[in-house]
Amino acid sequence: MNVEGKPMRTIWRESSGKIVGIIDQTRLPHEFVTQEIATVDAMAEAIRAMRVRGAPLIGAAAAYGVALALERDPGDGNLNAAMKLLAATRPTAVNLRWALEEMCGVVASLVPERRAAAAWARAGEIADADVALNRRIGEHGLALLDEAWARKNRRGRLNVLTHCNAGWLACVDWGTATSPIYQAHDAGIPMHVWVDETRPRNQGASLTAFELGSHGVPHTIVVDNAGGHLMQHGLVDLVIVGTDRVAANGDVANKIGTYLKALAAEDNGVPFYVALPHSTIDWTLDSGAAIPIEERSADEVLKMPGRLPDGSVVTVEIAAPGSPAGNPAFDVTPARLVTGFVTERGVCPASREGLVSLYPERGEK
Amino acid sequence: MNVEGKPMRTIWRESSGKIVGIIDQTRLPHEFVTQEIATVDAMAEAIRAMRVRGAPLIGAAAAYGVALALERDPGDGNLNAAMKLLAATRPTAVNLRWALEEMCGVVASLVPERRAAAAWARAGEIADADVALNRRIGEHGLALLDEAWARKNRRGRLNVLTHCNAGWLACVDWGTATSPIYQAHDAGIPMHVWVDETRPRNQGASLTAFELGSHGVPHTIVVDNAGGHLMQHGLVDLVIVGTDRVAANGDVANKIGTYLKALAAEDNGVPFYVALPHSTIDWTLDSGAAIPIEERSADEVLKMPGRLPDGSVVTVEIAAPGSPAGNPAFDVTPARLVTGFVTERGVCPASREGLVSLYPERGEK
Repeated sequence: MNVEGKPMRTIWRESSGKIVGIIDQTRLPHEFVTQEIATVDAMAEAIRAMRVRGAPLIGAAAAYGVALALERDPGDGNLNAAMKLLAATRPTAVNLRWALEEMCGVVASLVPERRAAAAWARAGEIADADVALNRRIGEHGLALLDEAWARKNRRGRLNVLTHCNAGWLACVDWGTATSPIYQAHDAGIPMHVWVDETRPRNQGASLTAFELGSHGVPHTIVVDNAGGHLMQHGLVDLVIVGTDRVAANGDVANKIGTYLKALAAEDNGVPFYVALPHSTIDWTLDSGAAIPIEERSADEVLKMPGRLPDGSVVTVEIAAPGSPAGNPAFDVTPARLVTGFVTERGVCPASREGLVSLYPERGEK
Repeated sequence: MNVEGKPMRTIWRESSGKIVGIIDQTRLPHEFVTQEIATVDAMAEAIRAMRVRGAPLIGAAAAYGVALALERDPGDGNLNAAMKLLAATRPTAVNLRWALEEMCGVVASLVPERRAAAAWARAGEIADADVALNRRIGEHGLALLDEAWARKNRRGRLNVLTHCNAGWLACVDWGTATSPIYQAHDAGIPMHVWVDETRPRNQGASLTAFELGSHGVPHTIVVDNAGGHLMQHGLVDLVIVGTDRVAANGDVANKIGTYLKALAAEDNGVPFYVALPHSTIDWTLDSGAAIPIEERSADEVLKMPGRLPDGSVVTVEIAAPGSPAGNPAFDVTPARLVTGFVTERGVCPASREGLVSLYPERGEK
């Protein structure tokens, strides 16, 4: 999407052909800084330090990391070392593992002198495929937003609420939940987005608001507490969020607090959509009750990074010394509260039948 | 309640008899500091700067402020000047105005030399009456907590969730929503309180957690997003919150986000109680729809005070430069989501009939 009026991706091959560019997301939202990555070691560091984050982006970054490694030394020893290095950066990232296997499958059977070019090509394809996937999610979502806009007789503005950051910064471009929003904005629908702050890591206030602002989409940050009130007063036409994992029955695991917004949407008759690529569906889980919920560090609740008036970034403690905190990172929104799923293949009800209607090849199993 | 093992109120007459002590609440939760107030000007400053805050406490502070003024000069001119000075500190505070009228009623007809003693006596009575009122709310709430504890077969711990700060720091002692919690804890029920952070002003993470910790009540701060998840997993036995205003039909205006917790409580069969003194009931309002919702400064969302490692307190900006924010301060929880009201006269359903059953003298009007 656009940053300062210029279209960008979160990761790209520099014109020299031997360097990869990234946005250093650890500096957001306080500073927009890009970084040139010239070695696999630098890419591993960028993934480990979360300069690049979000499952799809991590996959593409790992793929480019393999290309960087083979550019220097295309031998088997270096290939294996690069694979091992990159795999260890984020041990639980499924996309990262998938991307590394893809890269290995493409280059391993080639003679060394052909490997670097093949690796660059495949890494580019992996990045392009993510862009295409999210563009398609956006196209299907755009149709929903246009219907909602028509229901308002195309008057005023279309108010969408979103939670956390299912945006292009987590992908190569477009994002999942944000893709319909960008496409509707670009298509001339007067969009306005309520951006949930999304405590404790504030991904909404920091990343989603930054994204939308950079692309020129009107938006307003609100605390996570505000969404119910906004819906009671008719100020939200539609909710759209991303997801970390969807069970086969349509239950949705997403950033903590999603469930509360789904309850408020139901109580006020506001459509509640979840945008996702097929890779997020976990066909092995019969229901959301089986999704383990990560309990993260209390420091995420008790400490807050922010910018001082002189522009420097510090971390402050916000509670009394010694106050204990709990930090469940996700919650599960029951399928009954979800109006529909928006996937790269289209829109479906949040149910096993709905998912199978779009992915019949998986439903047969 | 206790601070460092010592019973305290939020305001008291020092043993010298001519000075009033307060807790400087602007220093919380980072530092616990008390302050001696020797003049009406200092008391006016303390109210204006929110060193004392919360409707009941402000009323008591204003009353003591009149006593301080008359101690120096009991003449009519000084009495009138003090009334005017104190009334202007928080122009919309109903309790403050009521307390000043009480004080004026008591002293105005007396000869000047008898005024100071009468003022000190009446200010003490106003403070004591607030303590007694909240103690009674706590006694009625304790019965509810004991029933909930019995339903758990008195095993494990009793988990209560609260939002914002309806605690003793806003009153002279006990608080409203916290009074049943303190009484249950003191009675030996193994209480554990989930403390909602309560963005944007963080009154939960800062004030409620400080209070509970000081009195020794086990508690855990969670982000406002977490409560629904906790309820889904059976980790909340009961919710109890305070309120800023209750309409005659039982609709409840309280800190933004209360409505979301009420929805989650209903979805999970968790009892949801609201604690209030009679003065919070607005018999002139037929429903919560008539309650105006204050829109406060975006800075409360975008800026956050906190403590640096060296102990100094700074304010940081948490979003990208220029990000816009909205800040509705309250929401209205429909009476249908409220299990009951806990008042100084007992517990009643959240309905006009329920309120009239406890306050028949008002229902007749």
